[in-house]
Amino acid sequence: MTPPAPAHSADSLPARLDTARSDYEALLAKKLSLDLTRGKPSARQLDLSAELLSLPGDRYTSADGTDCRNYGGADGLLELRQIFAGFLQVPAGQLLAVGNSSLELMHDCLVHALLGTLPGAARRWADEERVAFLCPVPGYDRHFALCERFGIEMIPVPMTADGPDMDVVERLVAEDPAVKGIWCVPKYSNPDGTCYSDETVRRLAAMPTAAPDFRVFWDNAYAVHHLTDEEVEIADVLGACADSGHPDRVFVFGSTSKITLAGAGVAFFGSSPANVAWLRGSSAKRSIGPDKVNQLRHAMFLRDADGVRDHMRKHRELLRPKFDTVLRILAERLGDTGLATWSAPRGGYFITLDVPDGCAREVVRRAADAGLALTPAGATHPYRDDPRDRTIRIAPSFPDASEIEEIIEGVATCVRLVGYEKLVAEAS
Amino acid sequence: MTPPAPAHSADSLPARLDTARSDYEALLAKKLSLDLTRGKPSARQLDLSAELLSLPGDRYTSADGTDCRNYGGADGLLELRQIFAGFLQVPAGQLLAVGNSSLELMHDCLVHALLGTLPGAARRWADEERVAFLCPVPGYDRHFALCERFGIEMIPVPMTADGPDMDVVERLVAEDPAVKGIWCVPKYSNPDGTCYSDETVRRLAAMPTAAPDFRVFWDNAYAVHHLTDEEVEIADVLGACADSGHPDRVFVFGSTSKITLAGAGVAFFGSSPANVAWLRGSSAKRSIGPDKVNQLRHAMFLRDADGVRDHMRKHRELLRPKFDTVLRILAERLGDTGLATWSAPRGGYFITLDVPDGCAREVVRRAADAGLALTPAGATHPYRDDPRDRTIRIAPSFPDASEIEEIIEGVATCVRLVGYEKLVAEAS
Repeated sequence: MTPPAPAHSADSLPARLDTARSDYEALLAKKLSLDLTRGKPSARQLDLSAELLSLPGDRYTSADGTDCRNYGGADGLLELRQIFAGFLQVPAGQLLAVGNSSLELMHDCLVHALLGTLPGAARRWADEERVAFLCPVPGYDRHFALCERFGIEMIPVPMTADGPDMDVVERLVAEDPAVKGIWCVPKYSNPDGTCYSDETVRRLAAMPTAAPDFRVFWDNAYAVHHLTDEEVEIADVLGACADSGHPDRVFVFGSTSKITLAGAGVAFFGSSPANVAWLRGSSAKRSIGPDKVNQLRHAMFLRDADGVRDHMRKHRELLRPKFDTVLRILAERLGDTGLATWSAPRGGYFITLDVPDGCAREVVRRAADAGLALTPAGATHPYRDDPRDRTIRIAPSFPDASEIEEIIEGVATCVRLVGYEKLVAEAS
Repeated sequence: MTPPAPAHSADSLPARLDTARSDYEALLAKKLSLDLTRGKPSARQLDLSAELLSLPGDRYTSADGTDCRNYGGADGLLELRQIFAGFLQVPAGQLLAVGNSSLELMHDCLVHALLGTLPGAARRWADEERVAFLCPVPGYDRHFALCERFGIEMIPVPMTADGPDMDVVERLVAEDPAVKGIWCVPKYSNPDGTCYSDETVRRLAAMPTAAPDFRVFWDNAYAVHHLTDEEVEIADVLGACADSGHPDRVFVFGSTSKITLAGAGVAFFGSSPANVAWLRGSSAKRSIGPDKVNQLRHAMFLRDADGVRDHMRKHRELLRPKFDTVLRILAERLGDTGLATWSAPRGGYFITLDVPDGCAREVVRRAADAGLALTPAGATHPYRDDPRDRTIRIAPSFPDASEIEEIIEGVATCVRLVGYEKLVAEAS
């Protein structure tokens, strides 16, 4: 959301800086200690799943009669995969339910591609001279951390209102056989809330790639995490890939972490039959099966797709006011300053706040000095390097309403302080 | 247990073969379909943990006040680690509780050693010309499968009554810098039930190794799984390694899979502070924390070390009669034949049955033809190659008592059939 063009008050720039400075002094005097760093659900959101804590009760068999308490069942419980198949746009037969974290699945897909051979690959990625991933920016720091961990080179690609800039993506993947993948959060993207357009999905599926084993890591983390009445639908990427003759191109990830319990949910992997067989085979030596009792617990609690939708509406009732508070205060405090723009997401967990070039780190530092912990500036970019040093990620879910008010008021003060300091310095 | 020296009956060898053949015909006629392949707990054993299925109930905070429902807490719940610290002989501060499977932890330690750099290592194992592990035989097929998966060469080492033959081990690790590890199941070893002597533990800890990053993979899977009044204690390997100036030599693994629920338990990793920091760091990019709700559930259910001991006595009451049945029938049916020897374990999940050289595969094949599924012959050896083709692993835990009786009677028949066939062929 771009605020109205700065209708600067009659105050001179030095006067505005003076006001910002005294506001910041007042902020320091409050001696706050508040944390806005991570996209964690609040305790009240977790309370929505209280029933899970005493399930499955006296039941322990799945719909097909499997004793969920014992070893086995590597694919996960069919009834749970059926509930999520539609949301993740993957047929239940091609969807695995494993572990408690989609991040772990992404990590493990990289590991298995490094140490094993992907369908379509000429060799293990560990044996390639160079492996690179495209990283739409701003993006999710934990994706970047996985690349860094494994020495996978990261190439930033700018985001547009329709998703990654596909002209850039198409050129890079066509030219460079070392480009083996791209990170995508296609719906309510982390952190800017972007939803990929159908055309973006189509182009990702259809584009020629120099690498025969190129993969789209499709982290559909916010598939059902709507903040408005409009429940955004994105195009079916798995179907689009198959239709374009690239059936093995995409790995779909999802989880219930921000649906049920963040630390005790269920994660999903979906893909083509060949990729599913590859991951199943690659994992077979590692695991004697996922925690099926937790999957049964989830299937009993969520019941069906409508159960998930009803449940997510309750999350929305808790989350929406927090997002509204952030947006209201940003508009009130920064709307007429010309110092910031921000996203107004229709779903997901984050708002991005863009401050003047070169100011993000300083805003975060000043906020930290005032006891307000923000996600480190730069975290939204590969190697923690935001070349314009301007993007700040705001995660409103965890603090309670009054804390959010206090934090965002404080952040706005820091933005005015740092922004006006810069303008004054430039003017002098 | 070596049976009494064969006091052959008056029957001639051909007569004994004739009897075995007609017994086998009778076995075929029963058209059985029974499975003795895996070391799975029985449904009645899983029933012992029924209370877990409705825990933690209305509680969700750990002893230190952490909300177990949310992200975080990478080390796992301290109160659960404290319960198992003594059994696993690792200080709670050096013990991590993560995931539902120690096999996954072993896999991931290999992955992190391949793609990262172990404390003491000159380089990543992926960058070594050759990586080899010592594999005491008979051993656990899933250990061997992990090596095979990652191209780690396996070097068999014979087991003795005190554990691996340490003269062989010491020579191999001193000579060959490519030998980076050894698989050990130190108590009630899978599959032969051996308990490592204190001297074996001391020598493993003290021996000079050519590889500076040599690791003992100490899979203490049966730490509390006693079958007799004698609750075997083994020497403290982590302490012995530290005392010998090799503090980082050992990775200790354990889990509750065969204590509570096989598919929904908690796994443990313990080691030196440097190794724990290494695994914590290596896993940090992968995980936003383990399922702490399941850990809380376990801590509430098991309560303390005495709670674990009491619980394991209930397992023993269910398991001991099954092992006794196997041993009784083997003695009755094979004791005077000279065709077999077998282990009489004091704990764990398996009995090994050694048949005449060259006969194990054929016994398993004949049993399969009669509807009796046994662990494939050779599974107890690297590359599924038992050079003497003589060792069969018997897993009595899962079937009920009457099934075990039927299976072991059948197996004994197959041993007599195949053994006498061999003797007759040799005599002719």
